Amino acid sequence: MMTLYGYWRSSASYRLRIALNIKGVDYNYVPVNLVKGEQRSAAHLSRNAQGYVPVLELEDGTCLTQSLAVMDYLDATFDTPKFMPRDPILRSKILSAALIIAADTAPLQNASVLNHIKSEYTQDQEAALAWARKWIENGFSALETIAAERETAFLYTDDPAFFEICLVPQVYNARRFGVDMSAFPALLEIDSACRIRPEFANAAPENQIDAQQN
Amino acid sequence: MMTLYGYWRSSASYRLRIALNIKGVDYNYVPVNLVKGEQRSAAHLSRNAQGYVPVLELEDGTCLTQSLAVMDYLDATFDTPKFMPRDPILRSKILSAALIIAADTAPLQNASVLNHIKSEYTQDQEAALAWARKWIENGFSALETIAAERETAFLYTDDPAFFEICLVPQVYNARRFGVDMSAFPALLEIDSACRIRPEFANAAPENQIDAQQN
Repeated sequence: MMTLYGYWRSSASYRLRIALNIKGVDYNYVPVNLVKGEQRSAAHLSRNAQGYVPVLELEDGTCLTQSLAVMDYLDATFDTPKFMPRDPILRSKILSAALIIAADTAPLQNASVLNHIKSEYTQDQEAALAWARKWIENGFSALETIAAERETAFLYTDDPAFFEICLVPQVYNARRFGVDMSAFPALLEIDSACRIRPEFANAAPENQIDAQQN
Repeated sequence: MMTLYGYWRSSASYRLRIALNIKGVDYNYVPVNLVKGEQRSAAHLSRNAQGYVPVLELEDGTCLTQSLAVMDYLDATFDTPKFMPRDPILRSKILSAALIIAADTAPLQNASVLNHIKSEYTQDQEAALAWARKWIENGFSALETIAAERETAFLYTDDPAFFEICLVPQVYNARRFGVDMSAFPALLEIDSACRIRPEFANAAPENQIDAQQN
């Protein structure tokens, strides 16, 4: 059985829990407590040289890292339902929207960046959250423009796909950091339509064994 | 013919120039002057809701955005040479390494982030460069660990692939921002082996029509 090393509130871990649920893949979940610094242990660094979560360990011990790269593996390995259509243009558009979150938003508001802002520039927690909100609102503004013109229930598809697996965890972070989500009605519609599905609900941070541990 | 909207020093534009050269695709290059703010024009925002470069406009007017998503399109459309192998694990590993740059490094050191640090936290240019170096060194440290164990001339392959298209522009930025590259000998070897190839050399910032415009 595969093992997912993750953390309940890490949005990239949340992505992979959703992805594994959509594919219907059974897996072990091993929490890595980021607050206690377990990600910097030798054991975890041997799984991921970056010391980040998530890591998906395959049955043969191969460790896959970076959530989008793991999602690519899962989509290549487990045939249905597909995260990505075969049409190269549609595929590129879905991936582009996913990257607005996974490249241009999430990395700017992760814990190590917020901590660095606080320590390096002597900023308080509220200033760090204002930074996080700025970049989330930036990304969401572009995505809202795209989503407002959609012709399907989800961004480009009739069922949640690669993009939605990234969107829902980012909306979770947005709410946590105090973003006014009323500015993004199309994104909220997509988020709600996803979260009523069990694959998403079971992946939610509050439903993980390590939730509220600290 | 396709049109690439880009900027000479933008590392994501640099990636796509390399990618198009490797595929041997002829294209028009239309500079978008980021210093003059041309990326915020209505014309450019209609191509890319984020107001970023690069954008690849296809012959039918479809605009593709986010360099990794455009690379995915090019690899699906132009068969050889492939940026990505077919093996799902190898593919995932290459993509993971590319995302260490494209998600966890480049977005943290782009111009809009550096400008925001200067204005919001009253930091000078040297402090902004120190920030950029920190995140580049972070990403490169993990990649150096992976690259030091490689069994091929390039990271996982005998010819430059998806990862190397991301690496070379990031090394360019690292040098520009004053990163001490002697700490990353394996990455330097890969970078040098790429840059002697004409597909990479012709894509270099200094060889673009908009170079040194400002």
